[in-house]
Amino acid sequence: MIQITIIQIDNYGPWTVTPNPRRESDLQALQSRLYSDLNLQFGAHKGLVFYTRFDNLMAITNGIDTETHKRIQDSIKNRYPFTVSMASGVAETPYEAQKIATAKIQNKGSAQDKYRTEILDIEELDNSIENTVTLAHVDINDITGTLTDLENAYDTYVSVNEVHLALIKELKKYNAMGFFIGGDNFMAPCNGMTEEDFLEMFENIKNSTGIDLKAGIGIGKTAEDASNMADIGLELIRDKKTATQVYTLNYEEYAVGNIVNQRTLGVNMDCK
Amino acid sequence: MIQITIIQIDNYGPWTVTPNPRRESDLQALQSRLYSDLNLQFGAHKGLVFYTRFDNLMAITNGIDTETHKRIQDSIKNRYPFTVSMASGVAETPYEAQKIATAKIQNKGSAQDKYRTEILDIEELDNSIENTVTLAHVDINDITGTLTDLENAYDTYVSVNEVHLALIKELKKYNAMGFFIGGDNFMAPCNGMTEEDFLEMFENIKNSTGIDLKAGIGIGKTAEDASNMADIGLELIRDKKTATQVYTLNYEEYAVGNIVNQRTLGVNMDCK
Amino acid sequence: MIQITIIQIDNYGPWTVTPNPRRESDLQALQSRLYSDLNLQFGAHKGLVFYTRFDNLMAITNGIDTETHKRIQDSIKNRYPFTVSMASGVAETPYEAQKIATAKIQNKGSAQDKYRTEILDIEELDNSIENTVTLAHVDINDITGTLTDLENAYDTYVSVNEVHLALIKELKKYNAMGFFIGGDNFMAPCNGMTEEDFLEMFENIKNSTGIDLKAGIGIGKTAEDASNMADIGLELIRDKKTATQVYTLNYEEYAVGNIVNQRTLGVNMDCK
Amino acid sequence: MIQITIIQIDNYGPWTVTPNPRRESDLQALQSRLYSDLNLQFGAHKGLVFYTRFDNLMAITNGIDTETHKRIQDSIKNRYPFTVSMASGVAETPYEAQKIATAKIQNKGSAQDKYRTEILDIEELDNSIENTVTLAHVDINDITGTLTDLENAYDTYVSVNEVHLALIKELKKYNAMGFFIGGDNFMAPCNGMTEEDFLEMFENIKNSTGIDLKAGIGIGKTAEDASNMADIGLELIRDKKTATQVYTLNYEEYAVGNIVNQRTLGVNMDCK
Ligand SMILES: Nc1nc2c(ncn2[C@@H]2O[C@H](COP(=O)(O)OP(=O)(O)OP(=O)(O)O)[C@@H](O)[C@H]2O)c(=O)[nH]1
Ligand SMILES: Nc1nc2c(ncn2[C@@H]2O[C@H](COP(=O)(O)OP(=O)(O)OP(=O)(O)O)[C@@H](O)[C@H]2O)c(=O)[nH]1
Ligand SMILES: Nc1nc2c(ncn2[C@@H]2O[C@H](COP(=O)(O)OP(=O)(O)OP(=O)(O)O)[C@@H](O)[C@H]2O)c(=O)[nH]1
Ligand SMILES: Nc1nc2c(ncn2[C@@H]2O[C@H](COP(=O)(O)OP(=O)(O)OP(=O)(O)O)[C@@H](O)[C@H]2O)c(=O)[nH]1
Ligand SMILES: [Ca+2]
Ligand SMILES: [Ca+2]
Ligand SMILES: [Ca+2]
Ligand SMILES: [Ca+2]
Repeated sequence: MIQITIIQIDNYGPWTVTPNPRRESDLQALQSRLYSDLNLQFGAHKGLVFYTRFDNLMAITNGIDTETHKRIQDSIKNRYPFTVSMASGVAETPYEAQKIATAKIQNKGSAQDKYRTEILDIEELDNSIENTVTLAHVDINDITGTLTDLENAYDTYVSVNEVHLALIKELKKYNAMGFFIGGDNFMAPCNGMTEEDFLEMFENIKNSTGIDLKAGIGIGKTAEDASNMADIGLELIRDKKTATQVYTLNYEEYAVGNIVNQRTLGVNMDCK
Repeated sequence: MIQITIIQIDNYGPWTVTPNPRRESDLQALQSRLYSDLNLQFGAHKGLVFYTRFDNLMAITNGIDTETHKRIQDSIKNRYPFTVSMASGVAETPYEAQKIATAKIQNKGSAQDKYRTEILDIEELDNSIENTVTLAHVDINDITGTLTDLENAYDTYVSVNEVHLALIKELKKYNAMGFFIGGDNFMAPCNGMTEEDFLEMFENIKNSTGIDLKAGIGIGKTAEDASNMADIGLELIRDKKTATQVYTLNYEEYAVGNIVNQRTLGVNMDCK
Repeated sequence: MIQITIIQIDNYGPWTVTPNPRRESDLQALQSRLYSDLNLQFGAHKGLVFYTRFDNLMAITNGIDTETHKRIQDSIKNRYPFTVSMASGVAETPYEAQKIATAKIQNKGSAQDKYRTEILDIEELDNSIENTVTLAHVDINDITGTLTDLENAYDTYVSVNEVHLALIKELKKYNAMGFFIGGDNFMAPCNGMTEEDFLEMFENIKNSTGIDLKAGIGIGKTAEDASNMADIGLELIRDKKTATQVYTLNYEEYAVGNIVNQRTLGVNMDCK
Repeated sequence: MIQITIIQIDNYGPWTVTPNPRRESDLQALQSRLYSDLNLQFGAHKGLVFYTRFDNLMAITNGIDTETHKRIQDSIKNRYPFTVSMASGVAETPYEAQKIATAKIQNKGSAQDKYRTEILDIEELDNSIENTVTLAHVDINDITGTLTDLENAYDTYVSVNEVHLALIKELKKYNAMGFFIGGDNFMAPCNGMTEEDFLEMFENIKNSTGIDLKAGIGIGKTAEDASNMADIGLELIRDKKTATQVYTLNYEEYAVGNIVNQRTLGVNMDCK
């Protein structure tokens, strides 16, 4: 089971143009700082936030309770010129979870209703063993050599966005989701998907865009644990230590020791 | 003529995984803060930055000289765990300008060459009358009523990204460029394009995605002047004061008074 | 028992002038952002950080364990051009606690030893009932009417600093500590001090500086709980609901309900 | 002539406790971020800001005009939950300049008048040769060896604050001002003061506190130019290249080349 939180700036559209349109460089600074802060604040509790549309963000929040959400919501009100609403959903798949979360927010009123502010409706997961996050870190093979150093910046950007759109649509077929995290990287909460699903999906994307992908898949109790595992998987693929371009690591099973040791020792070890 | 600057984090890929993969929430906080800071610092000189891929950013920098670029480059080095390279190009169209800028950076070595750091190669525009920025602020009609309040958050996000990809590909045909700026908004540096081009482009996008777009187009000596004009144009369209869903305002011609007065008086005035 | 953490930027002095002195406005931006981030990150776990000297900061960290300290230390390394060392001490009084913490850091080498980096030596408190923070929020009476609106800004600033120095020296006599938190406000971790101690101390400061002080004193399991109580105490004094200019509230005893209710209902209630 | 700007958060005291006291770690994050941003934004125009009391800040703003102040004021409104007022004064000495600036703000109403918002009253200096900033960078000798590595952190902090108070009071005698900038460093706008004044002042402070100070003094058209010169002076003192513990450099006279070269070559050159 995965827990997904939706974060929505309250009545933001009207604010951006009241009393007159606000300077765009300020809005960009404001929105990206909100995203930065949310990552630090959810990250303090091993969550992970995606910018999505900047005014509507999504987070993986397994292990993060109502009180912690409330404290972050307060902190935004205390430091920003607007407030945010938050709702979470819990489900077998990420897509189902966000659907539940969205419905909760929508039921309380419109995103541009000025009387609907600071909704807080958090469904929490209990601590049982099946409540893990599955998270894939998807990466383009050798973007530096094939695009960044070769093509002009805009063409590279268009290519990355072609992959992005293909990926987020493909993932939806599996009730998973995908988000851009910078460079040539994407993160996909994907509970329920298999390595074979990824290989098939990458095949499709390769056919439509000509671009090769690889993915480390991590499983863990929190977004951070899963993400760390996914990163290590990706490094193992890079180091040609894996059979295919997709590789899964489970935090609980991962070596007998713990991740702290692994990090110290480096990843050049037998993992499975 | 428009001046486009490319900003590239030096040798960033290797850094993110040395000595081991860094926590993803920290990387997201770091990258979005860089974007925020660059907008404040270029914004202080009326420039505007787009996040593009977060490790490779683009800015409209008409009116911003080499020394100012150098000062921002120094400031990043003084506050971040990495350095950035910057190059600008100047051309009749945005696409051509970024092509020149990219080539300058690529000629100095790979994005992942650890000895290639802090490239600075800025071509500046002189002050003459033809050196203006044309910038469109493109917006989806009633996204709140048709998507945000109705569909689930992921589906809305997929729809916005479909528009995004369609738009950035269409714009390229005109040697223009497009960037997502949050919500349902896009900005397009588009020197050389006409209102008719936009109407035609929107028609195509409507056909392929089913989504209606509108655009304020601003012309001014700097990105900020152009952006302010585009925003006012957009408000006029919203207020049904215009014949079509595209409307252009030129900073120099805009009323006899100046923008400060307009902002005070509000935009509900005759503009043309 | 109180837990105090010392945070020291590693080898910072040499960095500020290598290879040449760095721009001062950047250093100010960098240092204050570090302070801001540390407050958000420790604040996420109900801690509170004081800027102290900006390169050496102090935090009240009751309830915050080694792993959380380590995660914050990593996050700084992941986002800043330097690393930090951290050590905590635990004692009956704040002054004793910081002494222990300082000794731990000093024993590992000089603040300007380039090989001594990322020390982490955290002594944690267990969860027992006596492990509370006592924290006073000290405030100047009517600074707006007597200084800010009347004197020039520099003279007001000198006056506030006179109070500051007098206060931090007086507090040391009680093995307590004091920190400026902006405006006319000071926070004093002060386990072991009584209301009478404060009244006597304020008398001395009034005699030497002519300035009247008041203080809410809060007691709680964490810095945040104590701080919230201190703030409520201060509001009660402001509302003339208390007999003297010092008033103590204990989080555990505070009303039968909980603080969330109080906050909702406002503080205009009987509290004791 | 020096130009000093006062920046005051409008009606901030009441906001911090409405509807109930806000979490202190958030307020610390908010205030220090404001300070950080103001340094980046004034710094973009070669100004320098001091945190002073965090709700009332001071900046050296030679060369920064009304429009730039207005743009920064707007940017704060666009990104913070409050607004700021700004006024500048121009005079032969820093103390006189801030006095003028304070009076302008006070004349418009109280700092806690909710109807007095976003005052903007900027007196600008023209470009003539005599309009330079004199700025001293004052530093404690070997604080690392004598205090940081030896004493406990609180005692070191008390010592630094003793120096701070002594310094800001002494400087006032010369119509100069002093501000803490972190570590063991202070900055003093000090137009009109001589090296002898500094030596005498340091003698007095040594007698009262036992602590040895040194100062680089810089003269330049902007705070940044002056600050850079002061820093280089300080390095020359550190390198024992000067006769006394105070050394002045003037940006205009400084070598025949320019500062960029100097920075590249390092400071180990003949300077006068
Ligand atoms: N957010 C995030 N971005 C990363 C990470 N690792 C790399 N990147 C980004 O990806 C870009 C390209 O780096 P790489 O993927 O290492 O380079 P590459 O040329 O594709 O090489 P291979 O992936 O090894 O084939 C970098 O500039 C970063 O922006 C990561 O862990 N997180
Ligand atoms: N970056 C940026 N985003 C904006 C701006 N104005 C609106 N937005 C974003 O767009 C979202 C939707 O707002 P609107 O476009 O006003 O809402 P709408 O329902 O589409 O209404 P109409 O555009 O008036 O048809 C907001 O939540 C913001 O995220 C702007 O000036 N800049
Ligand atoms: N950090 C912090 N600063 C505060 C807080 N409350 C007020 N301040 C600061 O204190 C300044 C003065 O506000 P007040 O103390 O309310 O004003 P006053 O005129 O002294 O009024 P009284 O204290 O009620 O006599 C404000 O500008 C803020 O900078 C708080 O809770 N935390
Ligand atoms: N803001 C600021 N702080 C600085 C600067 N240089 C040093 N510091 C601070 O001062 C602290 C002490 O560094 P130093 O002054 O180099 O150390 P020191 O032991 O006193 O050595 P000497 O001054 O060379 O005798 C550092 O930790 C920094 O916090 C600077 O240029 N600006
Ligand atoms: Ca890659
Ligand atoms: Ca819209
Ligand atoms: Ca007060
Ligand atoms: Ca020193």
